[in-house]
Amino acid sequence: MVLISDIREKGRAFIADLVEEMDPKADGESAYVLIERLYPICRSITGNGVRRSLRLLRETIPLALREVVSDTPVFDWTVPDEWNIRDAYIMNQAGERVVDFRKSNLHLLNYSVPINRIMSLAELRAHLFSIPAAPDWIPYRTSYYHKNWGFCLTQHQLDKLEEGEYHVYIDSTLHPGHLTYGEFRIQGETDDEVLISCHSCHPSLCNDNLSGMVVGARLAARLQNLSLRYSYRFLWVPGTIGSITWLALNETILSRIKHGLVLSCMGDPGNFTYKRSRRGDADIDRAVGHVLSHSRREFNVLDFTPVGYDERQYCSPGINLPVGSLMRTPNGCYPQYHTSADDLSLVTASALGESLLQLFCVVQVLEENRRYVNLNQKGEPQLGRRGLYRQMGGGKDTAAMEMALLWVLNFSDGRNDLLDIAIRSGIPFKQISRAAAALQTAGLLGAAASEPDACED
Amino acid sequence: MVLISDIREKGRAFIADLVEEMDPKADGESAYVLIERLYPICRSITGNGVRRSLRLLRETIPLALREVVSDTPVFDWTVPDEWNIRDAYIMNQAGERVVDFRKSNLHLLNYSVPINRIMSLAELRAHLFSIPAAPDWIPYRTSYYHKNWGFCLTQHQLDKLEEGEYHVYIDSTLHPGHLTYGEFRIQGETDDEVLISCHSCHPSLCNDNLSGMVVGARLAARLQNLSLRYSYRFLWVPGTIGSITWLALNETILSRIKHGLVLSCMGDPGNFTYKRSRRGDADIDRAVGHVLSHSRREFNVLDFTPVGYDERQYCSPGINLPVGSLMRTPNGCYPQYHTSADDLSLVTASALGESLLQLFCVVQVLEENRRYVNLNQKGEPQLGRRGLYRQMGGGKDTAAMEMALLWVLNFSDGRNDLLDIAIRSGIPFKQISRAAAALQTAGLLGAAASEPDACED
Amino acid sequence: MVLISDIREKGRAFIADLVEEMDPKADGESAYVLIERLYPICRSITGNGVRRSLRLLRETIPLALREVVSDTPVFDWTVPDEWNIRDAYIMNQAGERVVDFRKSNLHLLNYSVPINRIMSLAELRAHLFSIPAAPDWIPYRTSYYHKNWGFCLTQHQLDKLEEGEYHVYIDSTLHPGHLTYGEFRIQGETDDEVLISCHSCHPSLCNDNLSGMVVGARLAARLQNLSLRYSYRFLWVPGTIGSITWLALNETILSRIKHGLVLSCMGDPGNFTYKRSRRGDADIDRAVGHVLSHSRREFNVLDFTPVGYDERQYCSPGINLPVGSLMRTPNGCYPQYHTSADDLSLVTASALGESLLQLFCVVQVLEENRRYVNLNQKGEPQLGRRGLYRQMGGGKDTAAMEMALLWVLNFSDGRNDLLDIAIRSGIPFKQISRAAAALQTAGLLGAAASEPDACED
Repeated sequence: MVLISDIREKGRAFIADLVEEMDPKADGESAYVLIERLYPICRSITGNGVRRSLRLLRETIPLALREVVSDTPVFDWTVPDEWNIRDAYIMNQAGERVVDFRKSNLHLLNYSVPINRIMSLAELRAHLFSIPAAPDWIPYRTSYYHKNWGFCLTQHQLDKLEEGEYHVYIDSTLHPGHLTYGEFRIQGETDDEVLISCHSCHPSLCNDNLSGMVVGARLAARLQNLSLRYSYRFLWVPGTIGSITWLALNETILSRIKHGLVLSCMGDPGNFTYKRSRRGDADIDRAVGHVLSHSRREFNVLDFTPVGYDERQYCSPGINLPVGSLMRTPNGCYPQYHTSADDLSLVTASALGESLLQLFCVVQVLEENRRYVNLNQKGEPQLGRRGLYRQMGGGKDTAAMEMALLWVLNFSDGRNDLLDIAIRSGIPFKQISRAAAALQTAGLLGAAASEPDACED
Repeated sequence: MVLISDIREKGRAFIADLVEEMDPKADGESAYVLIERLYPICRSITGNGVRRSLRLLRETIPLALREVVSDTPVFDWTVPDEWNIRDAYIMNQAGERVVDFRKSNLHLLNYSVPINRIMSLAELRAHLFSIPAAPDWIPYRTSYYHKNWGFCLTQHQLDKLEEGEYHVYIDSTLHPGHLTYGEFRIQGETDDEVLISCHSCHPSLCNDNLSGMVVGARLAARLQNLSLRYSYRFLWVPGTIGSITWLALNETILSRIKHGLVLSCMGDPGNFTYKRSRRGDADIDRAVGHVLSHSRREFNVLDFTPVGYDERQYCSPGINLPVGSLMRTPNGCYPQYHTSADDLSLVTASALGESLLQLFCVVQVLEENRRYVNLNQKGEPQLGRRGLYRQMGGGKDTAAMEMALLWVLNFSDGRNDLLDIAIRSGIPFKQISRAAAALQTAGLLGAAASEPDACED
Repeated sequence: MVLISDIREKGRAFIADLVEEMDPKADGESAYVLIERLYPICRSITGNGVRRSLRLLRETIPLALREVVSDTPVFDWTVPDEWNIRDAYIMNQAGERVVDFRKSNLHLLNYSVPINRIMSLAELRAHLFSIPAAPDWIPYRTSYYHKNWGFCLTQHQLDKLEEGEYHVYIDSTLHPGHLTYGEFRIQGETDDEVLISCHSCHPSLCNDNLSGMVVGARLAARLQNLSLRYSYRFLWVPGTIGSITWLALNETILSRIKHGLVLSCMGDPGNFTYKRSRRGDADIDRAVGHVLSHSRREFNVLDFTPVGYDERQYCSPGINLPVGSLMRTPNGCYPQYHTSADDLSLVTASALGESLLQLFCVVQVLEENRRYVNLNQKGEPQLGRRGLYRQMGGGKDTAAMEMALLWVLNFSDGRNDLLDIAIRSGIPFKQISRAAAALQTAGLLGAAASEPDACED
């Protein structure tokens, strides 16, 4: 095989080369370093934290920052006012910041309105949130669409608060402004698109979802230099309102989206979990299921549910895009979820690298999957005289490549695509795809004329 | 929620209220008391025992007694002569009744023709039936369509019979008369009907099928005061000939029957068993399966077989109604089946009450199940500003009600009914139904225009 | 039942009689004796070994030997030159035959070109094949389409070869001639055919596939005297090239083949394995699956794969016949496969007999399977007055025959054939078929008019 380094000079590298050459460790470490830098920033569904985060990703890929003005109607919603935060604390009578936004941005109820008041602990309590069962962790709470203020703190902190008066200070603004999201598009051979989306609104939480943000960015960085059949669109959008906004503003191009994935929780060392698109049998569902089945790890495939992240919007009934959701341990299924314990120790470079590798393999399936027609359907063609078959029979083992050739020939009847054949045979897609290429070269396989008649089966 | 007692005065109570209010214990005890009273009566497929039993049920509900004259042709059958029994015994030479109908009506081969003869034990033996493996139990045997006479006795009784002569006396009549069945109909909002059928021909046997007879009666009693969408038709018919007779005489209205259940063996404490209709995927099949899956007990669902009770007739190929069969331990699967041990000790008030509760839940599904259309299918609608969603995000648990709302919205695309959504989500139907009501009130859900195009999927 | 011996005189015996009467032991022993006689012959894909073997089978059935001239184009292939072998050995300097074709024809790489040379062990080594992991066994190797020569020997033999010069002698010919195959056809009531094919090219290997060859011959011998609905065509063809040749020369009649089986590995005592046709749901797939499910043994059913024996050709996409593959332990799944240990000790008379019995049962299903229509579809017909039902009800056990009657009646709605009903009910096909016959006699069942509308379901 030609090395990607050789090809790139000629301007032609393909996803298959990338999959062969990829070093998950190196890619994973680049991703981890990016998470470390993004971690301290206080993100939300709008505001400067998001802008800073997206600009930081621009070091990796030249994504565009899109600004959508507050109050823009987007389907059933309107873009909210922009929220920005400078400082926030609860100060005791001794002048000590007993809860301090500067120590962790999770301490603040995200989207808190400003306040600057002295109040009793009794009054304050209604605005304090802790996790009694995990007394060392700060919970993550938000109040985007209901004006409120509050602080999140560890149970230990809460227990230590003495009766008395406290100075409650939140220096935030909530004014008409913009909702900001990131977008990056790679033009492929066709305008048909693969959509990769991740939510970018969580503050200092690593797995959910800095991991998705950086894995998306690394994937984009690696794909941008390849010769691609599909165009790829990457989105970094605030959860729910971001995907709704993007969908509402881009309705006319939705029909171009042929496959899509929402990425979240990509950095913990747990097994992979794939949640199918609402359609349930989309190509992306078959592709990810197949790739994970050859990942040498346990994995879970779940049917679509309308609970989760932005797949809820991409798969709302009136949109119904073929968009699935790839995760490692899913949201809500690890104890650190939505707490301060979802920190830099929960995610690992090797988990991030492995996530990227699976994504490359999925992209390879999407890029190389096609329906072919065996040009010699009566009996097997004689592979031996074409150099495609072992010269000597009777050995106990039929080599894997020969199996792949026979599978591709037998099932390339115009109905099955290569992914169907890979799934049915249990042979990894890339081997099936390689066999198809060899058979094409030998003149035994041709492109299928058009889409199969779904009713003909 | 408004209490059923309040509503009833205004003439409007619904099945949902009944399900909430129901006291399975009280209902079960009423049912048990009814079984105690019915137990001594000698029923058969015709005759006064059936009439007495049905009149006793009229204390609970105003059912009609239908009389069909002997020799009436009903499909491939004809209504048999009417059988009545006054007394029967085997008397030994000492003048003792060694087998006595007055002690148990099971002692008589049901439908025995009259006899009054002295004969040797040798001659008598061909007419005696016992269960060697259960020597304390009297078997239950019949000879409806082949003229015969006989006695059933315990193996112990049989073993004690000494050689010699016996006076065999059966004071029965078998003459042209009538076949009697019970029928009760509740008119609902529409003429579409739910059929509830149970066989009423077994003599002193409790689980099979006094339990079905009284559970049917209690169900009817509870439904008759409700505001119902469907009309409900209850039948108490002799097995096989009774359902065939009813079908033959009511062929023109069969198309109104949208759902149906045969009730038998409802009183033993075993797990529930549901036997699907011949169609296998009828609404009633999905409804009962769903209800049992949330009953907090193990349960069995079996495919239709043409062996069993009257579902054989309702599901004969030329009738093929959507009628399933609900049981606890199925006929033939408990040792006491068709013996004198199927007595008052086998059935319990709590089992009867629990059976009724499942039936109420099934009725709720049938009554409330509909297809709706999400009126806002692009993205999720903003539930928060409509007061349908928690105000504050980020908590670990999405409340059950919010989940139900999201499921109903996402899958109310005009194809799925609420039961589909309940099954797919694993959320109990009543919660799904409640969510649908809330969404309707909020203007987010409308009725689906018409039946979905089956091919459109 | 009338005995086959009685009927045969009148010229009318049916497969049902054969299944009842068959003595698997006797049939198995006949098959084993045949294997013993065929075992020493050196077969290949062409040549006199095949001719001798087929002539030996003519003692059992009057099969035809077909000769196809070398170089005949057959689909993508051409019939190869004919290979014949007289003698072959490797002789050491002491004049001893250290590897000797006369001791086992497996010693020769099958289809070796002639050679007569002195060479060093070093040069010879590239042409020697052994199995280090099974040092007592000679491997079986071929080189049909790539001109080569070689010897197969045990690892022990190989280890003993001392450095030095060897006389390598192969007295073979490879000249234009013929490809020979055997064909036998039994004309049934219709021209619709059942195809039974086995490969006849392996030299001294018993299970693979003398077992298939003799089981096919015994099956043919037994069927030829029966009154049959289908015509039966038996083929003994060299693997791959033989089935391709037959298909290419008989393309016009392929549409007559309604069912088919490839037989191989029929003689080892392992469990049965059935590999489905490419269609996956052909009648033959359902028939064999059903028969094996009642064989009182564990068994495996595998989906079609394009790896195996001649089902690869019969199920190539442009041919796609409903041909499955019946085996005991499949090729490649027993350690002796393609070695000298696949000898007379691996196959047993009882395994061969049992294989034959399953085939008879499959033939019974194919012969007797039909769609019928219940002529009385509303309610059950009254079986009692037709003598088809026990006279007295209430007994715990419904006899198996009565169950079969009810199943046939309920599901004979013009859509289900008897095999569907057997599979659905779990009742053996022959009992279902017997029930159908009884119901026909009673005027309750008629032949279904025509094929069911596949879309009507």
